[in-house]
Amino acid sequence: MIIEMEKNATREEIKDVINVVINDFKFEAQVNTGEERTVIAVLGSNTGDIDTQSFEVLSGVERVVRIQRPFKLASRDFKPENTIVKIDNIEIGGKELIIMAGPCSVESEEQIIGCAFAAKKSGAKVLRGGAFKPRTSPFAFQGLKEEGLKFLFKAGLEAELLIVTEVVSSQDVELVASYADILQIGARNMQNYQLLEAVGKSKKPVLLKRGLSATIEEWLMAADYILRGNGEPKVILCNRGIRTFDNFTRFTYDVGILPGVRHLTHLPIITDPSHAAGNYRYVPDFAKMAVVGGADGLIVEIHPNPKKAMSDGAQSLTFSDFSLLMEELKKIAEVVGRKI
Amino acid sequence: MIIEMEKNATREEIKDVINVVINDFKFEAQVNTGEERTVIAVLGSNTGDIDTQSFEVLSGVERVVRIQRPFKLASRDFKPENTIVKIDNIEIGGKELIIMAGPCSVESEEQIIGCAFAAKKSGAKVLRGGAFKPRTSPFAFQGLKEEGLKFLFKAGLEAELLIVTEVVSSQDVELVASYADILQIGARNMQNYQLLEAVGKSKKPVLLKRGLSATIEEWLMAADYILRGNGEPKVILCNRGIRTFDNFTRFTYDVGILPGVRHLTHLPIITDPSHAAGNYRYVPDFAKMAVVGGADGLIVEIHPNPKKAMSDGAQSLTFSDFSLLMEELKKIAEVVGRKI
Amino acid sequence: MIIEMEKNATREEIKDVINVVINDFKFEAQVNTGEERTVIAVLGSNTGDIDTQSFEVLSGVERVVRIQRPFKLASRDFKPENTIVKIDNIEIGGKELIIMAGPCSVESEEQIIGCAFAAKKSGAKVLRGGAFKPRTSPFAFQGLKEEGLKFLFKAGLEAELLIVTEVVSSQDVELVASYADILQIGARNMQNYQLLEAVGKSKKPVLLKRGLSATIEEWLMAADYILRGNGEPKVILCNRGIRTFDNFTRFTYDVGILPGVRHLTHLPIITDPSHAAGNYRYVPDFAKMAVVGGADGLIVEIHPNPKKAMSDGAQSLTFSDFSLLMEELKKIAEVVGRKI
Amino acid sequence: MIIEMEKNATREEIKDVINVVINDFKFEAQVNTGEERTVIAVLGSNTGDIDTQSFEVLSGVERVVRIQRPFKLASRDFKPENTIVKIDNIEIGGKELIIMAGPCSVESEEQIIGCAFAAKKSGAKVLRGGAFKPRTSPFAFQGLKEEGLKFLFKAGLEAELLIVTEVVSSQDVELVASYADILQIGARNMQNYQLLEAVGKSKKPVLLKRGLSATIEEWLMAADYILRGNGEPKVILCNRGIRTFDNFTRFTYDVGILPGVRHLTHLPIITDPSHAAGNYRYVPDFAKMAVVGGADGLIVEIHPNPKKAMSDGAQSLTFSDFSLLMEELKKIAEVVGRKI
Repeated sequence: MIIEMEKNATREEIKDVINVVINDFKFEAQVNTGEERTVIAVLGSNTGDIDTQSFEVLSGVERVVRIQRPFKLASRDFKPENTIVKIDNIEIGGKELIIMAGPCSVESEEQIIGCAFAAKKSGAKVLRGGAFKPRTSPFAFQGLKEEGLKFLFKAGLEAELLIVTEVVSSQDVELVASYADILQIGARNMQNYQLLEAVGKSKKPVLLKRGLSATIEEWLMAADYILRGNGEPKVILCNRGIRTFDNFTRFTYDVGILPGVRHLTHLPIITDPSHAAGNYRYVPDFAKMAVVGGADGLIVEIHPNPKKAMSDGAQSLTFSDFSLLMEELKKIAEVVGRKI
Repeated sequence: MIIEMEKNATREEIKDVINVVINDFKFEAQVNTGEERTVIAVLGSNTGDIDTQSFEVLSGVERVVRIQRPFKLASRDFKPENTIVKIDNIEIGGKELIIMAGPCSVESEEQIIGCAFAAKKSGAKVLRGGAFKPRTSPFAFQGLKEEGLKFLFKAGLEAELLIVTEVVSSQDVELVASYADILQIGARNMQNYQLLEAVGKSKKPVLLKRGLSATIEEWLMAADYILRGNGEPKVILCNRGIRTFDNFTRFTYDVGILPGVRHLTHLPIITDPSHAAGNYRYVPDFAKMAVVGGADGLIVEIHPNPKKAMSDGAQSLTFSDFSLLMEELKKIAEVVGRKI
Repeated sequence: MIIEMEKNATREEIKDVINVVINDFKFEAQVNTGEERTVIAVLGSNTGDIDTQSFEVLSGVERVVRIQRPFKLASRDFKPENTIVKIDNIEIGGKELIIMAGPCSVESEEQIIGCAFAAKKSGAKVLRGGAFKPRTSPFAFQGLKEEGLKFLFKAGLEAELLIVTEVVSSQDVELVASYADILQIGARNMQNYQLLEAVGKSKKPVLLKRGLSATIEEWLMAADYILRGNGEPKVILCNRGIRTFDNFTRFTYDVGILPGVRHLTHLPIITDPSHAAGNYRYVPDFAKMAVVGGADGLIVEIHPNPKKAMSDGAQSLTFSDFSLLMEELKKIAEVVGRKI
Repeated sequence: MIIEMEKNATREEIKDVINVVINDFKFEAQVNTGEERTVIAVLGSNTGDIDTQSFEVLSGVERVVRIQRPFKLASRDFKPENTIVKIDNIEIGGKELIIMAGPCSVESEEQIIGCAFAAKKSGAKVLRGGAFKPRTSPFAFQGLKEEGLKFLFKAGLEAELLIVTEVVSSQDVELVASYADILQIGARNMQNYQLLEAVGKSKKPVLLKRGLSATIEEWLMAADYILRGNGEPKVILCNRGIRTFDNFTRFTYDVGILPGVRHLTHLPIITDPSHAAGNYRYVPDFAKMAVVGGADGLIVEIHPNPKKAMSDGAQSLTFSDFSLLMEELKKIAEVVGRKI
């Protein structure tokens, strides 16, 4: 942590800051007396834990800049080698790209079983589908809940696919975990810390979506919440677009974070091209970008009849479009040294 | 809802869209055949409930624009006159501005009682203080929990102030409601729908903070979640800054939404200048802006010794600075026809 | 400047960075060998001039953080006391708030003279009006150009008001300067450096609007371009809203920057409530916020008949609304120790 | 254009709006009397030219939504088939991807000739290099100006590459056009309308970068400015990252706009991965994303010795990294049906 003093900070103010660094926080302080202003470097093994406000409040302080990253368990500093999340016979974070596909919402047994076989046939390894739906309006369809979980489970069993589905409440974690292989935390719950702790304790692998306006640091700190309870590093990150001034697509596609995130964390990262695009026309190109950008997999919305979907129809691919896309992705993956 | 067809949409595609509007959704369709493209107006009393994606997915559709507001219970269309939330002898949303003050976190009995008397002395009517703290990092101080609630309760009783405090989990709603007069939903939980429903059912007044990147529509739909359970409209909105490219202050101060939000909703709205500012130096000016902009009150962080605060010290006012600010605010309120 | 090395940076890489600091840039280097990683402080009187990329490119470097501000002439470090821009008998940046008012575009002699007398009567000191209009579409009205300048000049003369008007091209600076007292640089030209240099050389006072997505540092560096040629510090800053995800008002109102900008720069700063609001209904509240927030003045759009305005009608006040607003502003200014 | 009236708008107000639509603007008005509020559709062939404020200002109007796109010459409605910009023997917008490469700034004859041969050898067709540099600070290196143009010209001649270089002022257009094959308009000048008109009149092909916070509509309206003077559609769009809350990379990489922009406009579009990344480590992945996303080419920064570059060193590729990247891009282009 670097504390920049005001240009006209007094000797007393500087001393006071050093005193807080050394005596209150037990860090080392190294003082750089520049020509224009004094800068104090705070040294210690866990300065990343300290809120910058602890120093900003002191008299004579102009600005505090954090050097150490505030996330720990998700950091490569903590675990340098890549994490591979193994579930049954699949590995997320290995050479093979893992494709997850399915409808936004589970609507009926028939629909989800149809999706499962279509997904399987094209090469997907995991079936997605929402049973508990967090909807912006309380008057919108909220999902089939446990009935939906049962349909999902059956579909996964029949088509031999793993199941990923969202959990929106800590009370439901046990229930959802009894049907699903991977628990999904949605973007709007990325900082629902109680839920993060609950899924961490469940020991299940967790797919953690990036919040709409979360920084990379906040996202990895949210992963820390799960990892702390999780014991093993069974978190899969998932980017899905962010909210900016540019609403030309549903969300601004944040695919450009992939190489940098990989540098910071050992956790695998997959990409959701469907929510960012908001429009099935853009989903194939978005999927390809993620593959060449280094994603470890994709989670894609498909639907037997998108026009009749109960949610997110516009961004869902038909089975035949998904099949075509998978053929293209296989070729692209090969060129960049991966496989599907 | 307005459906804009592609320039070269076929007659079949247009017919198909009209068919969905009339037969699937039971709305009326009015067709405008322009020189360049066909535009279909969807008419009906609750088109605001329908996801635009339901039409975007149809063949030949270029764009869908929503006309009706998607929020209902929070809307002035639903309830034209201003809502006043009455709790004991105070009225939030009336002529008097209600000032809420207190520390970010409850740290000890002594600290919170000190804050309560300082707040009371300067004219505040409600004591704030966090017992359950949602912290970005799992390694940061998480609050005193029930012990903190007890200290809060005692402080409110002694200083004769109402209590507002944050609830972060649906499991805790009953507990928190047994100590607090107003339940606060924090910015990061604005779309934690399960929690919104739980506080709605508690029948307690709820202070609903705006999410960091929430649109006004999303915020009012979140209010709808609470209002649906609440029965009476006991929701107080609270703006607290948003996240944009401009991080010159901790958050971009969203005080400019005040007049427009008042136009859309009957609910009272108060402002949190402390979190937006992130720095005690800016809090007084931010507070004044809210008062002249039409806020129904403020929620301000104060601390007996900000330098020793366990969280958010840099944005907390000392008791004497708060006292000075209140004197200034009283004069400003008077000029704009309000009082404190 | 603070250079954070990668955790596993080699001794050679660290040496190489120090070498560049000392031998290529002639700065001092102070090395902090932390437990986790090495951090190098670059010390010297003008490290603010150096691009952080000069160090980011070096092998083993993780991140570079700038400590020194990159702007110079606009900085309080360079000139600690407030600048007051004096033009004839008015002072911008003094105790009195200077109100500038007038139409978006000069449309006719009659219109601008009507505006001038209405502005004068309500207490404005400067007449605004666009003769050269930078319009987003090439097919929109582009202004009356020199004829508009002549009308403005006449109106200013008759009503005894100073004139501020926008200049959009370096070729026009001399022409515009022969009619206007203050040259305005619009938001879209904030980084049109050739234009900044041209207005700087003209020695006229310059009103510099903040760009739609400009940081405060970029804005003050743009002021540096003008100040370098200007000799005297005759730059007036003007905030006018920024572009963010939140388009509830035309632009997100950036009034929250006022106290912080005043801390960084000695230049006066005025606020444009009209462009941020985009709607006449919000302009009065926006104006009041700026006054209590410490602006040195306002620039407000008024029009004899907003419904017939050739541009920006929706955000223009009628003469009677402007007159009412001025009465309110006078009272508010008094409460915060200023006057109009 | 769709005009939504306030819920309690009077019959008089509605009549007045219709009157303005029909008599002032000579459009047709179609009135939809919904259960909740009246909505008026404005029909005509060029409603896209009209500012929404013209109606927002009218009494009783709640909101105005534009249906017609405000850009014209750049639109596929105006010219449905793809534009191919042909310069000598290259085609931008055809099957072949055109790669432009070179240093940020021309620093010396030797440097630019070295870059030219390296670019040529790896398969680039156009040499980039800045002679007039728009720098954020007036104290930074501003380019070699005409001397730089001469070096560029010589390098292009010797290595048999076309030349693209930035022009920052309308006065310089003739000079720059005498040395360059393509004139570049930088992001900060995207709304410098006088410059846009000047390059349009020069009849040279123009590379138009997207502004840091420009919407797609504003970008295409800026293209309209050039196209109006240009006669032939010789504009090449270039995306290069936008400014959002997320500054994890230098700019948020806006590669997700590619498929949608192609849908709206007939103009070719290339991508600049270097400025978005801000870091050479991310440039290769960013380049690959653009290729699979449908870009018609790339413009990439390379430098013989990035550590010694006078600007943008951190985001420049060495010659050998560029050569490796080009080999990879060739394979990827082939998979998506393009070639390099």
